[in-house]
Amino acid sequence: MKLGLFGFGCVGQGLWKVLHETKGIRADIKRICIKHPDKQRPVPGHFFTTNPLDILDDPEVDIVVELIDDAEAAFAIVSAALERGKAVVSANKKMIAHRLPELYSLQQKTGAPFLYEGACCASIPIIRNLEEYYDNDLLTSVEGIFNGTTNVILSKIFDENISFREALAYAQANGFAESDPSLDVDAFDPKFKLCILLLHAFGVFVAPEKVLNLGVGRINDFDIQFAQSRGQVIKLIARCYRESDKVGGYCIPRFVHRKHRYANVRNEYNAVTLESAFSEHQTFVGKGAGDKATGCAVLSDISALRYQYKYEYRKFSQNGTFFDITDTELKVYVRHAFEGQVDEADFISIEERYSSANARYWIGKIRLQQLQQARWLFDPEVNVVEWSGV
Amino acid sequence: MKLGLFGFGCVGQGLWKVLHETKGIRADIKRICIKHPDKQRPVPGHFFTTNPLDILDDPEVDIVVELIDDAEAAFAIVSAALERGKAVVSANKKMIAHRLPELYSLQQKTGAPFLYEGACCASIPIIRNLEEYYDNDLLTSVEGIFNGTTNVILSKIFDENISFREALAYAQANGFAESDPSLDVDAFDPKFKLCILLLHAFGVFVAPEKVLNLGVGRINDFDIQFAQSRGQVIKLIARCYRESDKVGGYCIPRFVHRKHRYANVRNEYNAVTLESAFSEHQTFVGKGAGDKATGCAVLSDISALRYQYKYEYRKFSQNGTFFDITDTELKVYVRHAFEGQVDEADFISIEERYSSANARYWIGKIRLQQLQQARWLFDPEVNVVEWSGV
Repeated sequence: MKLGLFGFGCVGQGLWKVLHETKGIRADIKRICIKHPDKQRPVPGHFFTTNPLDILDDPEVDIVVELIDDAEAAFAIVSAALERGKAVVSANKKMIAHRLPELYSLQQKTGAPFLYEGACCASIPIIRNLEEYYDNDLLTSVEGIFNGTTNVILSKIFDENISFREALAYAQANGFAESDPSLDVDAFDPKFKLCILLLHAFGVFVAPEKVLNLGVGRINDFDIQFAQSRGQVIKLIARCYRESDKVGGYCIPRFVHRKHRYANVRNEYNAVTLESAFSEHQTFVGKGAGDKATGCAVLSDISALRYQYKYEYRKFSQNGTFFDITDTELKVYVRHAFEGQVDEADFISIEERYSSANARYWIGKIRLQQLQQARWLFDPEVNVVEWSGV
Repeated sequence: MKLGLFGFGCVGQGLWKVLHETKGIRADIKRICIKHPDKQRPVPGHFFTTNPLDILDDPEVDIVVELIDDAEAAFAIVSAALERGKAVVSANKKMIAHRLPELYSLQQKTGAPFLYEGACCASIPIIRNLEEYYDNDLLTSVEGIFNGTTNVILSKIFDENISFREALAYAQANGFAESDPSLDVDAFDPKFKLCILLLHAFGVFVAPEKVLNLGVGRINDFDIQFAQSRGQVIKLIARCYRESDKVGGYCIPRFVHRKHRYANVRNEYNAVTLESAFSEHQTFVGKGAGDKATGCAVLSDISALRYQYKYEYRKFSQNGTFFDITDTELKVYVRHAFEGQVDEADFISIEERYSSANARYWIGKIRLQQLQQARWLFDPEVNVVEWSGV
């Protein structure tokens, strides 16, 4: 197998190293397409090119490995490679989540495989397990901690009793958060992963815009103290589920008990829990961020291409399910600042009410669709956290 | 697909129910072979037979599902079915661990698939992941908590501060341990699973007799207090690993820190941790015992047969590795009763020594091969626990 790489950051360099050390995977990197040819690199210069066509139009290159940041450029490379019948490996969750219908059609049209295990929870082999092991209609839910950055921040808050602001500063200083952390903090990144899993778990294509994502940026000291007073911590949970032919999904912070299995998933670790009609829950835990964790998934995808592995998207072909959240009820904690800021009429019922000079909160039931449309939802003084009762 | 079942206990009955509820798996149970035809059963009588040939010689039956206890009878059924070209699903770890070479040859000869995910850690899809996702030579170790019964006992001991004897009585009273619990307590059951994983992880056939299994039955109050004084609990860990072309394995209780990920895997849950050259560790957690957990794995195997799935045993075909533990060093805690009971000459070094009127222990390094042959190893007054330092 001959590989053409796009991008040569840490993942690409790690891949180079491993492919030269292992004898189990007989794959050679033939060419590497980069943006800046003048950078010093630990690999002989003749491997590099700045012209994508040097890889795309090389008939010797069987596999294109796309490892660049820019989602638009990545889609152009991936689709051009598939059009030419080349196998493609990518870990670009933003691009994939937004372009799934086109990427699916391209695979159907060209027959070329497109693998992207690294796009969901990095090293955790969740897509492969959904495709191969949970390949029937008994699966009822897939949920978990899908974002390493916010999990570092939340672990720091509850392990060391510090504020959100301090924890974010720590994450940024230690390379766990970008200088603009909004993709992570506002829960877009885990939502992209959720959209990909919605297809592999339940066979539905869902545009990211349709799925509610609430981030962790509005967690304040009152919320933290409230959690602690109830023996809870907060985790950012992405969740999708099926009830008969309806599939739903959302990504919202959740209170979980200190002894709950998620509470022990700390820092950059991710967790995915699967439930099915006939099984107990199963949890996969592994590093969900970082070059090595992503590189590990990319490598397993390359390895699988030795056997012409491709995603079958079986649930989509089997399927009569559709995305519909009208029936979904959530129990939520809604902390706000003053009377009238949150509309009581939006709720099915309110079970707890608290108010003091400093803060007020309700705990009540609400329909997900109602929540998604609530006028107060993104008010900076309002914070919403799912109350799971576990 | 038409199924023939052998055995109709809880797993078989659960399977019956689920297959009648799901539309994703189009499989019908055609015939069920049982021992006692007079028992009351929730299924019409014409489904039952006491003659194995009614299933084995029925050309309409595609898949034989073997769910009986007796290892010898199970092997006879499985091999007869494979010889007739039928696909077979089983979860009989004892039978499989002892008969792997023959079962492998039968599959090669007949081309019929034999799946047994339920034999290793019940619901955790570990064999499938080793076959498909970790299908290259980068894997370095597979280890974990493979036995639900002893994990119930050990959880009880450390969560409730009770003795081994009390914890065992609890496990027996609550259906987690057999009246003769020796297969579990003496660590044969997790060893059988380890032998199966040795093939799928590293491509070596290892007879169970070659692998050391130390159980938890000799843990006394002194050991428990020692663990607590160091902030540790005890877990029964099965482990296999590869170093260049040598593969090793053993199943020995281990001290792990209260905050270690294994300490939070409680009761009948199992955990499997994989490490590979390029990845961080990954842990799969799920119920490792019980009818539903096993049924879930059996069902996934049946489901995979829709797509002619079979184990490829790729590592065995790739492989130049062999089982050899001569180089393996372990650090162990050895509690004993009197001077001279344990031979100091067996150790590479001894790092801690303690003695009092009540008990004595050493913590030292020893070669696994030396330990396996030590004359004091099964002395009822001696207890050996791996000291991992984490």
